Amino acid sequence: MSSRNPPSTSSYEQIKESPFFKIGLHAAAFAAGVWFIQSPLMDVLALLAAERAQGQFDPNKMHVFLEETAEKSRLFKRLVQSFDRDATLTTGGKYYDLTKEQQRENTATRIARMAQYIEIEDEQTWATRMSLLSVLDPQTGTRIGVNLGLFLGCIRGNGTFEQLEYWAKKKETGQLKGLYGCFGMTELAHGSNVAGVETTATFDKNTDEFIINTPHIGATKWWIGGAAHSATHCSVYARLIVDGKDYGVKTFVVPLRDSNHNVMPGVTVGDIGAKMGRDGIDNGWIQFSSVRVPRFFMLQKFCKVSREGKVDLPPLEQLAYSALLGGRVSMVMDSFRWTARFATIALRFAIGRRQFKSASQGDGTETQLLNYPLHQRRLIPFLAQAYVFSAGSWKLEHTIKHTLDTLDAAVAANDMGKIMKSVNEMKSLFIDSAALKSTSTWLCADAIDQCRQACGGLGYSSYNGFGKGYSDWVVQCTWEGDNSILAMSVGKPLIRSAVEVLESGKKQKGAVAFLNDAKQWANEKLVFNSAEELLQPQNTLKAIQVLMTRVALNGADVLKENNGNFDAVGAPSLVLSKLHAHYYHLHEFYRRIEGNEHKELNSHLTLLGQLHAASFVIEKFGGDFLGNNIVPPAVLNEVVNKKIPELCKQIRPNVVAFTDSFMYSDTFINAPIARYDGNIYENYFDTVKKSNPPENTKAPYSAAFEAALGRGSVEERERGDKSAAAASVLSK
Amino acid sequence: MSSRNPPSTSSYEQIKESPFFKIGLHAAAFAAGVWFIQSPLMDVLALLAAERAQGQFDPNKMHVFLEETAEKSRLFKRLVQSFDRDATLTTGGKYYDLTKEQQRENTATRIARMAQYIEIEDEQTWATRMSLLSVLDPQTGTRIGVNLGLFLGCIRGNGTFEQLEYWAKKKETGQLKGLYGCFGMTELAHGSNVAGVETTATFDKNTDEFIINTPHIGATKWWIGGAAHSATHCSVYARLIVDGKDYGVKTFVVPLRDSNHNVMPGVTVGDIGAKMGRDGIDNGWIQFSSVRVPRFFMLQKFCKVSREGKVDLPPLEQLAYSALLGGRVSMVMDSFRWTARFATIALRFAIGRRQFKSASQGDGTETQLLNYPLHQRRLIPFLAQAYVFSAGSWKLEHTIKHTLDTLDAAVAANDMGKIMKSVNEMKSLFIDSAALKSTSTWLCADAIDQCRQACGGLGYSSYNGFGKGYSDWVVQCTWEGDNSILAMSVGKPLIRSAVEVLESGKKQKGAVAFLNDAKQWANEKLVFNSAEELLQPQNTLKAIQVLMTRVALNGADVLKENNGNFDAVGAPSLVLSKLHAHYYHLHEFYRRIEGNEHKELNSHLTLLGQLHAASFVIEKFGGDFLGNNIVPPAVLNEVVNKKIPELCKQIRPNVVAFTDSFMYSDTFINAPIARYDGNIYENYFDTVKKSNPPENTKAPYSAAFEAALGRGSVEERERGDKSAAAASVLSK
Repeated sequence: MSSRNPPSTSSYEQIKESPFFKIGLHAAAFAAGVWFIQSPLMDVLALLAAERAQGQFDPNKMHVFLEETAEKSRLFKRLVQSFDRDATLTTGGKYYDLTKEQQRENTATRIARMAQYIEIEDEQTWATRMSLLSVLDPQTGTRIGVNLGLFLGCIRGNGTFEQLEYWAKKKETGQLKGLYGCFGMTELAHGSNVAGVETTATFDKNTDEFIINTPHIGATKWWIGGAAHSATHCSVYARLIVDGKDYGVKTFVVPLRDSNHNVMPGVTVGDIGAKMGRDGIDNGWIQFSSVRVPRFFMLQKFCKVSREGKVDLPPLEQLAYSALLGGRVSMVMDSFRWTARFATIALRFAIGRRQFKSASQGDGTETQLLNYPLHQRRLIPFLAQAYVFSAGSWKLEHTIKHTLDTLDAAVAANDMGKIMKSVNEMKSLFIDSAALKSTSTWLCADAIDQCRQACGGLGYSSYNGFGKGYSDWVVQCTWEGDNSILAMSVGKPLIRSAVEVLESGKKQKGAVAFLNDAKQWANEKLVFNSAEELLQPQNTLKAIQVLMTRVALNGADVLKENNGNFDAVGAPSLVLSKLHAHYYHLHEFYRRIEGNEHKELNSHLTLLGQLHAASFVIEKFGGDFLGNNIVPPAVLNEVVNKKIPELCKQIRPNVVAFTDSFMYSDTFINAPIARYDGNIYENYFDTVKKSNPPENTKAPYSAAFEAALGRGSVEERERGDKSAAAASVLSK
Repeated sequence: MSSRNPPSTSSYEQIKESPFFKIGLHAAAFAAGVWFIQSPLMDVLALLAAERAQGQFDPNKMHVFLEETAEKSRLFKRLVQSFDRDATLTTGGKYYDLTKEQQRENTATRIARMAQYIEIEDEQTWATRMSLLSVLDPQTGTRIGVNLGLFLGCIRGNGTFEQLEYWAKKKETGQLKGLYGCFGMTELAHGSNVAGVETTATFDKNTDEFIINTPHIGATKWWIGGAAHSATHCSVYARLIVDGKDYGVKTFVVPLRDSNHNVMPGVTVGDIGAKMGRDGIDNGWIQFSSVRVPRFFMLQKFCKVSREGKVDLPPLEQLAYSALLGGRVSMVMDSFRWTARFATIALRFAIGRRQFKSASQGDGTETQLLNYPLHQRRLIPFLAQAYVFSAGSWKLEHTIKHTLDTLDAAVAANDMGKIMKSVNEMKSLFIDSAALKSTSTWLCADAIDQCRQACGGLGYSSYNGFGKGYSDWVVQCTWEGDNSILAMSVGKPLIRSAVEVLESGKKQKGAVAFLNDAKQWANEKLVFNSAEELLQPQNTLKAIQVLMTRVALNGADVLKENNGNFDAVGAPSLVLSKLHAHYYHLHEFYRRIEGNEHKELNSHLTLLGQLHAASFVIEKFGGDFLGNNIVPPAVLNEVVNKKIPELCKQIRPNVVAFTDSFMYSDTFINAPIARYDGNIYENYFDTVKKSNPPENTKAPYSAAFEAALGRGSVEERERGDKSAAAASVLSK
């Protein structure tokens, strides 16, 4: 336990030979000249260095686990270095001082720089670069993402192979060149309900064109990233109208700006202005006033309109919405990377920061924040969350790649059997990605917020990243599928499948296959009777599945009482979606541990899995665990009051090793209270002074303020009109 | 139930005679000219108006309940109108577009305007004005608050009567004139642990002065609101050193700027720069380099240093920290007012916004968001929260006033018996205010965040207030007592008192008096066995107290296992603090209902109390309720799955009446999706266009962006040096 206390002289001696420690010692010696003798804070550097030296595993090996393969780990480190060195792409304290206008210009400059990399990097490298950019500078990431991910994603999902070739390659859009696309799905009055959008695309047989039109203000395309300034084209979701008949929502490529970057006739674009976060993105609105595009600007992989106006509809409407799936998947990866970043900030700070003298600490110094059990409990679960999320993120990435490739191949071969099989995989992916996107982005938002609070006042300073981090992050809970709506969409098939199993024994596949055991658990039988047992990986997974089964079956009862109206089961759907996501992450995390080549890491990793399960599943859903008799009250009490603190205590000595394993450079952390050297106060103070030179002690508006302070009396300012002297005149 | 569906023609006929509706109809008719026929959104105005007309109580009477008396209700309305009309103080869409520099100037201008009101308004009026300002423009409120509330509050709490007279009245600081004070408590390395601050005040007997000094970077005064630009004086918390002896932290008035607003010699001030929110406040840092102030600049109500260096210490150290209490109390009131504002925004939007067609709705229109049970459950509890908070806020305001007045009188009379009685009241107030401040500000933060999410993308637009609202708000969870630390400080006396009662039968008073029944509940006896019974007001209160007793007793066991180390009971302390706050609010809320002169409101109010209790207490602490056997699982299930939806459904028809009852004008709501007229889309679109004129379709940086899109090929840009032609030359 010695690592939980500040280094004594002897442990200091032991560790100073460590290669990690040398950097720290050097910096400490430098700092010593300035204030070493005066300050009881002198050991901030030594504290982090000492804990680092005592880590019980190699962060480089742990990084391989986090990034899945040694190759991807190497690529990650190489690209981190590339960002660090690239003066256009790197960030720093100044990043937090930019106005909205500066941010917009800044992201545009970065896009131009990123464009040079996309031309020379392979797919895997570029994907990793984009994933890292979403940590370093998420708004630039998004601004590129709407073009490559959403605009081209829409064309890939809905266009023919030739259409994709034309727009992505021939026009070089895929290289961030020539054209710049945006994604015209949502409207001012229509967000989540895509099938309800009201922009129309009316076929004009005479000219072989579609007329794109915005019928009223509510149908104005809204929130369209890139529309305000950058986009030349838009993939527009509009109702296909042929011969007066409405065929539902289809997709069309519509030019917004000509090659001089002037807005096309009939197109009105505007800037939607300031946002809670991501002000660097030029979100805009678009109105179309009878804009004509050739018939072949319609994306027609699944749906076709012939020269004569004959309409071929797709086998399944869902196929058209695959464009959003990629975004959802990458948001799960983002949840891992962001949780990792903010947990690192708060944990490094909690190691260097001392607060209050503890009874247990006799040396007169104040106690390191992270040595308080409550503080451990506030923060260490987020470390666990980052690790557990890493596993599920990678699995989901593989699944989407496999699913879309298979579908593309089946469509190319026009093999209806294979297409239908792909459609089934796609349904499973819809459930998994909806549950994972919503749950992971919510939990990451909590993590950022809680980590900020754990840094006290310094967490509220912009320069430590939490403010912009939170504001930038939380849109992930809303866009590309509002979290609540997504979660509802997960509950529905689960409840339905549970009923099918119980009523007709129908065999379930994919994401809902676990419900095949529903009969066995359709009762109130206690499932586990000891905390120790419950926290065993396979048992935790089983407990979650039984709980889901029972919640689904209860939901089914409520559904019956409400005549099958799914609106009535919103609340249990939410619970089901969250549990499903936790199951997915934890299952994959424990599976990865089993297959881990660096076996020496496994005991450490298992602790994280158990803490995640105990904190975010068992404690959080305590009422559900007890209410559905998964465990008795005594077991829940033991998990909450004993196991969680114990797990935190066991993980505590390796907190620095665990956070170092994320391999974020200081550029990526971008929070001076949490740099690698641990020199909290000097680093932060320097950043503040650099951004706000202390020689400016008077504000530009000072004169007016001083005049207000120095104003005359009320009587003077009333010109003495209420004085006794005036009264003697006026009252006569 | 008709009000839960859009008005049919017949209900339309019924209500169009309502005076409320006429305004709506007029506006609808105007809008009709533009897009009435085309848009299914045409009824947004009618929707809100219809629901308003059907409200089952008078919002004016309800406002009296919320503001406690008819007189205060009138004052509130008068001041709302005064803010609406005052062009300097009012806000609007532009408020959300200001840069940090503009915000700073803006708040300074507003302070000058507010200064004109403070000169002519009585105490009650000014207090209400400040309370309203904290909703309309919280950063200006804070910037004034650090001067009047903290600087002068510190002098009131720690200075003699004459010292207060001098600094507040003679120097006119209390009129926002002459001087401007700031509050120098926290340091870069010391936030919550005030007793650990390291700035020194060393008495120099030779010159009869104190030497104020910042020994090292960690002792730099940090976060000091007003220090960067405005403050002329600072109430400095520093260690009193006399003859080499450290007497602990005392308070001193130290001038920062001279009458020309130039920084004094020996004083270094700087701007701490950008923050997550409240950028309009000029928070700064201060370093003192042996700055000398006369001995009588020490605040000496409790602690005195004589000319010879003899030190008189206060009877109780806690007395010195009362300066922060006023802030905590007003944050509870803020929590009420802010929850009210954001709940109104989300609820009005949820009435006008339609999304998806519901099976139950046959007329082809989409369903109003608020008619979805899940959406009701997401939002209506926050309405309940605002109402319940209103009661506790007023009670706490009365308590602090009484406590401080009594203490002042006792100190003035130098009556030690009365002083000690006051100290006991003060201890109770510390517990209550700590629990209420932390719990209420946390719950209000959740409310803002959840209300934002419930507005989807439009909630992320700055112009609807949530972004700045959240960022401005959440510092309340950190400043003037970090919420977690405050909550811990509540758990400690509760656990200790529970043990005292059990072990020695010692009678408890004040905030912990309910523990006198501890013996009766020190078991696992079931307390309530039906949901109906549990939700009866008096039973809910009893259930909370029994739960608190059991949690405290469990905590006591953990404490014993950990040899009395309170660090080990952080988690149960947190639970105790939250339950204590809910008890306080609910108890007062139900008490106020009993004494309510407008009896016809009571059935409506009781529903809100029950929903608050069911959502924020019973469901939220479900695991604790079951784990401590307050109710059996079936009762919890019934509360969560039946009672909450039922309560929401019962409250639903009066949602507009309940939100109108807050009596916020559109200026105070400052969110175009939630104005009184309900014209969501037109209002919002107008605001966006006003702030971002759509004639600007090219960004200032467009040329650079266009050049990047239009760049030549990689080969061209590499000057063809890698071409076959070059190779044929170079490879020779």
